[in-house]
Amino acid sequence: MAKTGFVSSIADQSEDFPGWYNDVVLKTEMASYSPVRGCMIIRPYGYAIWESMRDELDRHIKRTGHQNVYFPLFVPRSLLEKEAEHVEGFNPQVAWVTHAGGEELSEWLAIRPTSEAIIAEVVKDWIQSYRDLPLLMNLWNNVVRWELRTRLFLRTAEFLWQEAHTFHATEAGAAENVAIGLEAYRSVSEDWLAIPVVRGRKSRAETFPGADYSHAIEAMMRDKRALQAGTSHMLGQNFAKAADIQFLDVDNVRKHPYGTSWGFSTRMVGATIMAHGDESGLVLPPNAAPKQLVIVPIFRTEEDRTAVAAAIDALTATLDGVTTASGPLRYQVDWSDASPGFKYSHWELRGVPFRLEIGPRDVASGQGVLVRRVDRTKEPAPLAGLAAELPKRLADYQKALFQRALDFREANTHSVDTYDDFKATLEADGGFLMAPWCGDAACEKQINDETGATIRVIPFDSPDEAGKCLIDGRPSERRVLFAKAY
Amino acid sequence: MAKTGFVSSIADQSEDFPGWYNDVVLKTEMASYSPVRGCMIIRPYGYAIWESMRDELDRHIKRTGHQNVYFPLFVPRSLLEKEAEHVEGFNPQVAWVTHAGGEELSEWLAIRPTSEAIIAEVVKDWIQSYRDLPLLMNLWNNVVRWELRTRLFLRTAEFLWQEAHTFHATEAGAAENVAIGLEAYRSVSEDWLAIPVVRGRKSRAETFPGADYSHAIEAMMRDKRALQAGTSHMLGQNFAKAADIQFLDVDNVRKHPYGTSWGFSTRMVGATIMAHGDESGLVLPPNAAPKQLVIVPIFRTEEDRTAVAAAIDALTATLDGVTTASGPLRYQVDWSDASPGFKYSHWELRGVPFRLEIGPRDVASGQGVLVRRVDRTKEPAPLAGLAAELPKRLADYQKALFQRALDFREANTHSVDTYDDFKATLEADGGFLMAPWCGDAACEKQINDETGATIRVIPFDSPDEAGKCLIDGRPSERRVLFAKAY
Repeated sequence: MAKTGFVSSIADQSEDFPGWYNDVVLKTEMASYSPVRGCMIIRPYGYAIWESMRDELDRHIKRTGHQNVYFPLFVPRSLLEKEAEHVEGFNPQVAWVTHAGGEELSEWLAIRPTSEAIIAEVVKDWIQSYRDLPLLMNLWNNVVRWELRTRLFLRTAEFLWQEAHTFHATEAGAAENVAIGLEAYRSVSEDWLAIPVVRGRKSRAETFPGADYSHAIEAMMRDKRALQAGTSHMLGQNFAKAADIQFLDVDNVRKHPYGTSWGFSTRMVGATIMAHGDESGLVLPPNAAPKQLVIVPIFRTEEDRTAVAAAIDALTATLDGVTTASGPLRYQVDWSDASPGFKYSHWELRGVPFRLEIGPRDVASGQGVLVRRVDRTKEPAPLAGLAAELPKRLADYQKALFQRALDFREANTHSVDTYDDFKATLEADGGFLMAPWCGDAACEKQINDETGATIRVIPFDSPDEAGKCLIDGRPSERRVLFAKAY
Repeated sequence: MAKTGFVSSIADQSEDFPGWYNDVVLKTEMASYSPVRGCMIIRPYGYAIWESMRDELDRHIKRTGHQNVYFPLFVPRSLLEKEAEHVEGFNPQVAWVTHAGGEELSEWLAIRPTSEAIIAEVVKDWIQSYRDLPLLMNLWNNVVRWELRTRLFLRTAEFLWQEAHTFHATEAGAAENVAIGLEAYRSVSEDWLAIPVVRGRKSRAETFPGADYSHAIEAMMRDKRALQAGTSHMLGQNFAKAADIQFLDVDNVRKHPYGTSWGFSTRMVGATIMAHGDESGLVLPPNAAPKQLVIVPIFRTEEDRTAVAAAIDALTATLDGVTTASGPLRYQVDWSDASPGFKYSHWELRGVPFRLEIGPRDVASGQGVLVRRVDRTKEPAPLAGLAAELPKRLADYQKALFQRALDFREANTHSVDTYDDFKATLEADGGFLMAPWCGDAACEKQINDETGATIRVIPFDSPDEAGKCLIDGRPSERRVLFAKAY
């Protein structure tokens, strides 16, 4: 069946990845530009994907003992300025409210770029004793960071996210929670979105402003660039000292608690697009797909239409009770006026995992043709058994998508030992470069300035492997992960 | 068992309702004040109640065909000013961003007080043909209205809400959607929060700025004042004309679509507190209660403790599979160090529907003492059958709470025919006053100025009943609902 012009109107993924990305986002109606500079509109198809990952993460966060709360959109300037590194990091990106209720405000209010500063100020009234700890809070909200160059989902002046904020009596307790946050993100990325990640620590230069250290997970996109898929920060006592939070410990000594914060944003919708999509558009993981199955009726005559409709009605009666790993089966029968070919392209562009084609000959033989979006394999599928099979087929698809992404990442991860090899590999192949680094910020900066690659993480899972720094030859304990990144 | 000082520390509900309200909100840790003028912090207990009503409303909104989307926090000044009544209504309450990214903005950005203006501007690109209609969208977000006098949950500079925005080819289609919105709110208020409501139309003076008409539901609080529990607006073609949205209709004529908008906010957490609470604190409807059952062990000796713990363990093993009308049973065993009396007060203050006391004598007889929060009735409850009974007991409690609120409203609703009677009744009893009104805004204003009561709604469900306007004696077709309101 001939393709329509529909799909060919998206940019070629291999030639123009950024153009392909924008085309996919706009033409699937996941999002659109808004009349406000740098701010996006999230449309139903994009918002449904966000809701899916948000709800899964929310379940994970609650299961690990955190409670949802809400803090104000505004952070008074004096509070934002209490933690010196923090204000230095965020001040250039802040949007300021200066007038409200018809008057000029006596103190400017920042639209929160993140909520550490106001939370520290407030919890000092709540944390009096070790009995008040740990304090495990999570916020779902919007934040604003005035970015110069914006990209739909990936970098927008306003975005939606979750920010967890926790306080602990000991540094060990806080460190454990940094790991809990990172595991929440690994789980949503890998198990829900089928995006494999590398876990590790950020270099000092990439650490959150005001944190002692930051952990992150990094994913590879289909253009072999890296995308940070979640960060978890050890704030130490920095904000607690700045806001003078003190508690009376079991030993009757007043101490500053240790804090953590971790966040995961609508950026991950962009990651889901770029980690799996292909030349025909989106390829969605079944767990997060707004539609998991689309049924396309095929007929020429009214008689055929009636027969096909009857078979589809009989099938959907069996589908309505089906439960998948992500809840009740989400399917749609496309009875629109368009041609079957147009419908195939339409739903392929939208990344629906399975398409079932049912025509008159299929009806006669009690089956349909089931097509997998990810590899377009086609097979006859008996309609009688389909409802019972679909949960397993979707689970297999989810696994296969994860494996495909993992294979892709492994095929595009290179160990390099010299700076010449580093530059040549980056130039020729891109991807993840595992290379020795002495730990010095100057070497890191030189590599970044000269190649555009940054240290994404110092991975937890890579083996100790002594080497010599790419730049100055000083000893390196283990390889770190370099890549060009979003 | 003696009460502790805990509960007596909240203000007397009958003497000082506002003080009682604030005490309940703060002492149950539902919310607290913030360092930002007029903005609140929603704490876990309050946020859990919000999540419960939010999720129920979200299910209702999706079931009726609306899709969730997100629009920017900012509305450029020029857009806000396009619809004349709208800007006049909201301008005095707007917070303005004037600086961002280290620069002064060329155009001020309003923090959205509501999103009609920006949505109208955007959808004009989406609505080209009658095939694009109806467009049924819903947003969950935060809005800012700079209020002079704020009250936790009831009136805050920033609040969380849902705003639906829909567009239709015909006025009839829009009118149908106004009704769908109002029914969503009636359903959540009555069926989920056990708060009976009066549905009706707002007077012109109380109509949303920019709407042709507004429908609302009004509830009676325990101090007999009214609270608007949700509004649904017919926007007509006002915003469509201001933004010049046009579509090609089936008859090949270009037309402006008809719009609706409707909203429901965190204010309803305040309504839930004030509609049901009593002198001991919160009384929560089981569907929205973060905990539906608290189990309080009673023991003096270690031996008793062991026996009670064993009985409770056996009980909770049966409770973990229990499903209620609002999901898995939410219960807690309170093993904290406090006295039983303290625990009773603590959980009564928090409005937990059922308390189960289990002491050594109860264990011996295989039962506990079950206490209903709303009326403190006590009865022995065999532990073996409790898990099976609880869903019905909670459903009965939910119904009883609704009936109690309905009885209270009916007992405090008065029909009056003269202005003298109106004033005397309002002074002596307060409550809802059903009175004749000619429809003239001047009469409405005089009553408001002189008594503080406003027309809450012109009810849908009250019978046609001719009368003479309280003020000028002109004909009135039916009684309207007056009350002092939040």
